[in-house]
Amino acid sequence: MGLHTRINSAVEAAIRIGQGGTPPAKLSEALHYACTPGGARIRPTILMSVAMACGDDSPKMADAAAAALELIHCASLVHDDLPCFDNADIRRGKSTVHRAYSEPLAVLTGDSLIILAFEILARSAEHNADRAIKLIRVLTRQSGMPFGICAGQGWESEPKIDLSAYHKSKTGALFIAATQMGAIAAGQDEEPWFELGARIGEAFQVADDLRDALYDCETLGKPVGQDDLHGRPNAVTVLGVDGAQSRLRDILSGAISSIPSCPGEAQLAEMVRMQAERLTPVPQARSVRAG
Amino acid sequence: MGLHTRINSAVEAAIRIGQGGTPPAKLSEALHYACTPGGARIRPTILMSVAMACGDDSPKMADAAAAALELIHCASLVHDDLPCFDNADIRRGKSTVHRAYSEPLAVLTGDSLIILAFEILARSAEHNADRAIKLIRVLTRQSGMPFGICAGQGWESEPKIDLSAYHKSKTGALFIAATQMGAIAAGQDEEPWFELGARIGEAFQVADDLRDALYDCETLGKPVGQDDLHGRPNAVTVLGVDGAQSRLRDILSGAISSIPSCPGEAQLAEMVRMQAERLTPVPQARSVRAG
Repeated sequence: MGLHTRINSAVEAAIRIGQGGTPPAKLSEALHYACTPGGARIRPTILMSVAMACGDDSPKMADAAAAALELIHCASLVHDDLPCFDNADIRRGKSTVHRAYSEPLAVLTGDSLIILAFEILARSAEHNADRAIKLIRVLTRQSGMPFGICAGQGWESEPKIDLSAYHKSKTGALFIAATQMGAIAAGQDEEPWFELGARIGEAFQVADDLRDALYDCETLGKPVGQDDLHGRPNAVTVLGVDGAQSRLRDILSGAISSIPSCPGEAQLAEMVRMQAERLTPVPQARSVRAG
Repeated sequence: MGLHTRINSAVEAAIRIGQGGTPPAKLSEALHYACTPGGARIRPTILMSVAMACGDDSPKMADAAAAALELIHCASLVHDDLPCFDNADIRRGKSTVHRAYSEPLAVLTGDSLIILAFEILARSAEHNADRAIKLIRVLTRQSGMPFGICAGQGWESEPKIDLSAYHKSKTGALFIAATQMGAIAAGQDEEPWFELGARIGEAFQVADDLRDALYDCETLGKPVGQDDLHGRPNAVTVLGVDGAQSRLRDILSGAISSIPSCPGEAQLAEMVRMQAERLTPVPQARSVRAG
């Protein structure tokens, strides 16, 4: 089974747990709608790659960890798309959850996915309780307040943004969760994996800024120019397109050299290189708005 | 230290964890605002009463469980008050979170409190990992999909409501969590405690219906007549005021006889009786809209 298939199976299995019995039908559908078909599943792919580099001695733990991380990511997308945030109509090429279902169901979908993520991890304690607790601790830290993606979104309501804290929490947090949860799922200490996650997160932020500036809506499957529109800080605005692309390459080579020593170190470096190529946007016909 | 003080200390300690470091200030404030000053803290009071009836051999576990349960309850209030649900301006006698802060911050406050609840429980694993995992499993089940309060809210978006599933999940779920988590925190099996929680939940639902029909906004500290307004099912509409009061007494005596055998059985029955008196509304000057 390929990695992408393995991740999608884990996510589908997790959603089925949230849909058990005879639940309210629309909310049950919306849970599935919000998580499928997935995007690149980049966070669980990193998580699984780290777990495999560390030996993946308990594949069901890694499956649970990957699913939980992806559910939290999908929940954050559903809430970020709400009218009071980005007011987005399109996500991954289809209607956002509040457009397809309703705003109440979008709020509840996000809430339910967050809770389901922790349920999946608590259930994984049947394989190894110690790892399950560590996974929950890392995922709560990187998703909630004061350091996680909730904090990241919270910074957007401040009159003065702490830019470093903003980027670390808004984008970096779930990449740190990805590398650390991958290590924990395979029975390794999570601390040495912090830096790889933080650097991949930084790279992702710069790449996202480049895509937001360079691509059109059709290519991206979501609205573009959102940073300009909402006055959010953006690497392209600060460094220009060439500067941002050069910065992206630097961060990624730093990420690769930060990989802790482990059995699958070489393959993991290769995965980061592949993600890097995937991330690096190629400028298109649309006029460049910055740089 | 009295029970109410113990619960409030546990809730305050939990919120401080969500406010660590230098978080975004408004979201940090909003977390505290959403949880203080508390209402009756009825769910953690029941949880603590059960834990004490079972010997309360690990008070820090009970503190963590009580705080986590109250955070989930407060999160649900913040999200339920949002414009897309009840659009409430007042809660516990002060402005709702989205009115006092903003709608984005209210969404994030709810999300952050949910995540913080599970963080608190994961941290309690340092006292006893097995109990921590059980607490997380019960709280995820009773708060998310398909059986928890998210499901309860989800039923309100269905064209045809399964009334029994609706009441069990919308109101009953967190009372079941209260009795079961109290037992788990004190090292007891949670299964025998299901019925007490379910019956208290049923009583609370009927009492809430009576209050909604009988009290004025000033007494209640929140808008009244919400069930009529939103076309939600209500025991007073079905049974009349006298019928609903008689039903409330029946449920509460059933609750008391369902208490499992335990060292503090008598005191626990007394607590349920006290809550019953507190719950039972006295009709006031406002004209009765039903029955």
